[in-house]
Amino acid sequence: MLVVQKYGGSSVADKEKILNVANKIKKRVENGEKIVVIVSAMGKTTDELINIAKSISKKPHPREMDMLLTTGEQISIALLSIALNEIGIKAKSFNAFQVNILTTHDFTKARIKNINSKKILKELEKNSVVIIAGFQGITEDGDLTTLGRGGSDTSAVAIAAKLNTSCEIYSDVDGVYTCDPKIVPNAKKLKYITYDDMLELSSLGAKVLHSRAVELAKKYNVKLYCASSFVEKEGTWVVSKLPEWMEEPVVTGATVEKNQIKITINDLPEDNKILKKIFDVLSENKINIDMISLFTYNNAFHLSFSVLNDLKETIEDSIKSVAPNLKFSYQGTFDKVSIVGVGMKSSPGVASRFFEVLSKNDIIPELVTTSEIKISVLVTKNKSEILLKKLAEEFDLGS
Amino acid sequence: MLVVQKYGGSSVADKEKILNVANKIKKRVENGEKIVVIVSAMGKTTDELINIAKSISKKPHPREMDMLLTTGEQISIALLSIALNEIGIKAKSFNAFQVNILTTHDFTKARIKNINSKKILKELEKNSVVIIAGFQGITEDGDLTTLGRGGSDTSAVAIAAKLNTSCEIYSDVDGVYTCDPKIVPNAKKLKYITYDDMLELSSLGAKVLHSRAVELAKKYNVKLYCASSFVEKEGTWVVSKLPEWMEEPVVTGATVEKNQIKITINDLPEDNKILKKIFDVLSENKINIDMISLFTYNNAFHLSFSVLNDLKETIEDSIKSVAPNLKFSYQGTFDKVSIVGVGMKSSPGVASRFFEVLSKNDIIPELVTTSEIKISVLVTKNKSEILLKKLAEEFDLGS
Repeated sequence: MLVVQKYGGSSVADKEKILNVANKIKKRVENGEKIVVIVSAMGKTTDELINIAKSISKKPHPREMDMLLTTGEQISIALLSIALNEIGIKAKSFNAFQVNILTTHDFTKARIKNINSKKILKELEKNSVVIIAGFQGITEDGDLTTLGRGGSDTSAVAIAAKLNTSCEIYSDVDGVYTCDPKIVPNAKKLKYITYDDMLELSSLGAKVLHSRAVELAKKYNVKLYCASSFVEKEGTWVVSKLPEWMEEPVVTGATVEKNQIKITINDLPEDNKILKKIFDVLSENKINIDMISLFTYNNAFHLSFSVLNDLKETIEDSIKSVAPNLKFSYQGTFDKVSIVGVGMKSSPGVASRFFEVLSKNDIIPELVTTSEIKISVLVTKNKSEILLKKLAEEFDLGS
Repeated sequence: MLVVQKYGGSSVADKEKILNVANKIKKRVENGEKIVVIVSAMGKTTDELINIAKSISKKPHPREMDMLLTTGEQISIALLSIALNEIGIKAKSFNAFQVNILTTHDFTKARIKNINSKKILKELEKNSVVIIAGFQGITEDGDLTTLGRGGSDTSAVAIAAKLNTSCEIYSDVDGVYTCDPKIVPNAKKLKYITYDDMLELSSLGAKVLHSRAVELAKKYNVKLYCASSFVEKEGTWVVSKLPEWMEEPVVTGATVEKNQIKITINDLPEDNKILKKIFDVLSENKINIDMISLFTYNNAFHLSFSVLNDLKETIEDSIKSVAPNLKFSYQGTFDKVSIVGVGMKSSPGVASRFFEVLSKNDIIPELVTTSEIKISVLVTKNKSEILLKKLAEEFDLGS
């Protein structure tokens, strides 16, 4: 039985935690399993390296930045391997380049192109635990790259896909919950969740695993298991379909995303070109638009949208550069509350139940967007947590 | 004009020092020179990495230790490259594996087998400063290795040899002095010193450059220049022969090596086998024997020798395991004072002047060894510094 395990930065933050991980691996090896381990940099190492680079250059050269940052993971793999060998488990650590994790040339945000599994399989045959640095890659020219934040999850899933096995992701979070337990104390931990729901539950998922890794797992149908490396509690399986014996919930989870900005532009000429120009200039200035609402009234367009980053001046300047005389309002800050569930597709009436919760609680929806498996609403900040609680009640997300 | 420069750990210990090195390189580049830079790990990084590894395992796995330690140099090269690019100098950093510094498989003390200079030359043609991690290597199997303590000097000299150019070694020491200026305040800085004298002056040289690097420089006739990275002072050239216009001194320098142990074994049977056995067992137990004196008296051997490491029990146990009933005395600790000079070969009477200094100052020689270019004497600790001063006077080592 072969399994890929990934341990996040908090799981290897110090000597004691590294030994804890080594002992967890030891148990599995003694159980007859073959293990490939992917490790992140220890604790805050990556942040510390970024800080020193930024103290030398405001915009450090990307190639050299990757040269710098890959050291974080290299330190972790070496120390974990030292720990495993110390407790009598044969282990060998490898940088990404040593197992040919080939990536694009996009320094600081490279994408994996291919992995040569030969060396990994050869070492596994020798009954070694194979420890591989997450987050790293190498280009065809032999330059070191990194996969961007959360890249170690992506490394782990890509290796699991290549080895045709499942992938266990260990962190300081013990699984995926229906809602944030800090807001909804009786939020349920999910035993299973689909890739699609996990992707939509991004604000919950981000703490557990990176959405890029979930996309990759979905693409190659890699079963993911998320659990805590500190406590022995059952975690959450992320899979393509829930097991047949499980009744599919209508709504899988609900989330709050904080600090959204709302922009409204009234009385736009009824001309599609102006909309394209506005969105183009915002995109050029790296403003991430999230929810969009457009309606026609009195032979004019009225446009509202929300953005994630609070860059008032950039947004104003961008819009004015396209159409200097527009009536323009900038309102911050709101929260976005969403419910997500693949089950919504086959259950009519979810939207009406959603809006009933809003109206019953006198919460005004500032913006609304819907997809097949998600409904999101922008509300004033002081209403978001109560809305989450009420939605959790309505859709049975508590235990 | 192509030159190889090496900056030691203290020269890149923090952000300010890295920027200082970058500016020094910038001046040379603007002067039209092509530069290959070899860098050590920042300040105490290597020691810190060793400490964390040793906290996990008393005897960390050597392959994994090298995986760990190579990160120190990788951080330095990345930061120096970021600094150079920041001040407008094109630079690219490389780990040893990226420029094919091929070594033996002896983890933690690998030896360089070959360097492929193609990539270095290609980057130099593009007018990039080429920054290479010192201390590192890679085996034919793709495992990372390190060259042992002081290995960065060896990397620099090997690369200079391959590129057929000279090598500048920058550290916090501004050159090679005739004696330790802390003991002999008017000690002269040498403008030139031969490889042979430099190798013999190990205790002076060790602070400036590693003897392995000097051996390599001698073998490939690489001119070395040692200077400070902090002050603009002329340093010392290490060369095969002094320039013709320079009068060769009889004695180039004098040194004190502290903390030597003296062992005496009396009344050994006059049998060569017992000597071989004693030296074999000491060597097996990694006792480094330095000076040896043997004399025959009353049909018996009387043996004295000095060792560098204070391992009384190991030494006693070793000798007793060979010959349990030997008369054995363990005396510590002494200092070793030496004078060195290639010029001694052609100047008779140096030994007699040396012993005259001893007798004039009532200093008893406990052990004496001589070579063609060196005379060493073991004396009691409280006499070593005065002896050094008197030797400096006698052989004109002050300014």
